[in-house]
Order: sequence, then structure tokens, then C-alpha cells
Amino acid sequence: MSLVIFSADDLSAMEKNYRTRFINSLPGFKPANLIGTQNKLGKTNLAIFTQVIHLGANPSLMGILVRPAASPRHTLENLMETGYFTINHVNSTIIEKAHQCSARYEKEISEFDAVGLTPYHSKNIIAPYVAEANIKIGLKMQQIIPISLNDTQLVVAEILEIIMEDDFVLEDGYIDIEKADSVAVSALDSYHSTKRKARLSYAKPGKDLSRF
Amino acid sequence: MSLVIFSADDLSAMEKNYRTRFINSLPGFKPANLIGTQNKLGKTNLAIFTQVIHLGANPSLMGILVRPAASPRHTLENLMETGYFTINHVNSTIIEKAHQCSARYEKEISEFDAVGLTPYHSKNIIAPYVAEANIKIGLKMQQIIPISLNDTQLVVAEILEIIMEDDFVLEDGYIDIEKADSVAVSALDSYHSTKRKARLSYAKPGKDLSRF
Repeated sequence: MSLVIFSADDLSAMEKNYRTRFINSLPGFKPANLIGTQNKLGKTNLAIFTQVIHLGANPSLMGILVRPAASPRHTLENLMETGYFTINHVNSTIIEKAHQCSARYEKEISEFDAVGLTPYHSKNIIAPYVAEANIKIGLKMQQIIPISLNDTQLVVAEILEIIMEDDFVLEDGYIDIEKADSVAVSALDSYHSTKRKARLSYAKPGKDLSRF
Repeated sequence: MSLVIFSADDLSAMEKNYRTRFINSLPGFKPANLIGTQNKLGKTNLAIFTQVIHLGANPSLMGILVRPAASPRHTLENLMETGYFTINHVNSTIIEKAHQCSARYEKEISEFDAVGLTPYHSKNIIAPYVAEANIKIGLKMQQIIPISLNDTQLVVAEILEIIMEDDFVLEDGYIDIEKADSVAVSALDSYHSTKRKARLSYAKPGKDLSRF
């Protein structure tokens, strides 16, 4: 083993799929989420996303990044029709079904049926949740921000509801997503369970951290 | 334990710090990265970011989300001066030092000195790497995209180089970040090591997945 430097030229010279795996590995561990949507007629869609980010706590905003290459963009089409979507944490019992949602199904096929997951509807959100997910988040789209450099779009959305077991929430507001069996992803196809090393106290200059 | 629904009103009614922890937990597992920058005079800065995302493989783009509340925004100020930054994976041996970088140090204090990490300079990037990080990425800022709804900014940057041991890279381009001891974060303060469940094959309609 030896230390190597990969340059921008090295990246350009990589075979396309090799580079895609390589570059997708670089951010580190990513969340694994299923995004549920439906069209005006109620036809459901389910897609796996690893680009889901926290945008802010007040107002409560989350973002998802929609890629141009991301197959036919049924998620975005449905979003334009209804404005609503759900974020559902992938857990270790549904990894294969979640990953299978990345296959390029025709628009008339619902991934729920194709992979064997169960839609779950709440009266507040015009989009299906995944019944098998332990943490379900319902959102309403607020804004679509184009990223012109590579034709991707950041969908900014407000959180309308969260559905989960109450004992995932600790007394300080932290949600124990490890207890909820949520998994992490690396690159495009590797799924990981986690083991907590530590929670650390709020950091201040000159003050030692404590673990809890 | 029982299933509960948290509404938007419930979120609004939460105490501020409670809500911050709660909302920050929702995306799922996040990458743990240290962002290295320096000003025109060479004064270094190091900040921990969990909002680092893959934006695209061709061109090779990554994004970091800069928050208005994020203490004095030394990272953004340095970025405006030099245009360069580094992304350094946090590994299990430097969790405490990385977390301590979230303390609000005065601008004249370098977090490298304050927390005991070692700056490492490459000739291509006007920003310090973290010597102790096993995966180091050097980038040049391309664009700052404002997210008007909550005054955050998405910094879009091109990857110029990656420095790591060659045996982290598998033959298909996948980088084994678990082997590199990279950690995941949940919410604001919980650090997790990982255990691979499976890599899954490229999904196609009607085709069974294989594990590898």
C-alpha cells in the first residue's frame, strides 16, 4: 500500500462507470432514503435517494438533489403535479427492496408493486409513505433551485409531519436512528449498519468534551 | 412504545435546542468531514461539516452547505479570499478533535493548533489538508448558490485532487471508506463506525440482485 494523488486529469481519464463509483464514494457515508410520490391520478412512485440533506431547523427544511441522469425523473414529474413527497429511512430489513427501486421501471409501474413494499397514506400528505420504514417524513415542496453547472436541481421542502415510534426520541430531542435500524450508504451500492462510538457534548473553546 | 405523529405545529412548539437536535436527526446518517481553508495571509481554519454532498461525476463536483448560524463564518470568508478548500474524512481516531472544531474559536486562532491536528499542504491547493485524515480531497470553488428561504448557501466546487492510500480503491472504482475508517454522524453530536451489510449489483427491472 502506498499514498497516491489522483489529479483532475486522472479523474477525466477514468472509464465512465469507474469514475462514477469513485466520485460517488468521496463525500463519505450518506443516508439511505426512499422518496415516495404520486401523480394527480394517485399512481405511486418510489425512488432511492442518497442526496438528502438537512437545510435548517427553523423553518424546518430538508432538501433532495434531483439528478438529470436519474433515469426518467418520475419523482420530479410527480412533485410538479402535487407538490408533496415523503422521505422514508431505509432499514436493514428492506435494503434489497430499496436498492431495487433504482431500476428504471416504466412510468406506469409502481415501484411499490415491483419490489414488494407497502404504501401507507396519511391524510395530510398527497404522497405515499413506505409502511416498512421506521422513520417516515412528510414534506411539501417550497422551491426548486437549479444548479446550472451540471443541470441538477435542489428541491427545498418544508417538513409537515414525522411518523415513528416515540421511543426513538431521546429526552433532549435527539432521534436514535441507530435504534430505528436506519442504514448508511457508501458510493452507489454499498449498505452499512452502524455502531455508535460516542455522543459528544457541545464544544466550547478551552473546554474538554464529555461523552454521553 | 407507540407510533406517534409529530405535526408541523409540534415542531414549532419544541424548545429551540430540542428542535435543532430533532430536525438534524431526520435525514439519516451523514458524512463527517473537516473543511480546511486559509486566508490570503496563510492563516488556517478547520471546520466540521456534515452537509457535504456529491453533485456530479462529470464534471466532478461536490457541494457543501454553509449555514448562517454557523458561528462566525471563517470558512466562507477564506473561500471568498482564495477560492480553495479541502474535504478531509473524519476517522475513528480523530472524532474528539474533529468535534472540538465546532467550538467558536476567534478568527486569529487556527483550529489545527487548538485541537491538535496537523496541517498538510499540497502544491496544487491553497488550503490545508488534515494530515491525520485517510481520505483528503482538494477542491476549487465554482459557484455559490443562495437558498433564500433560510439564508444558507450551497458552495459548488470542482475536485482537483484526491490523496489516499491506493489500496482503498477497489478494481471497479469503488472506494472502501469503511476500510479507511471513515465515520458517520447522526444529528449534531453522535459518531458511528460502520459494518458493511452488502454491496448490491446494478438494479434492472425483473432481474434479481446479487451481493458482492
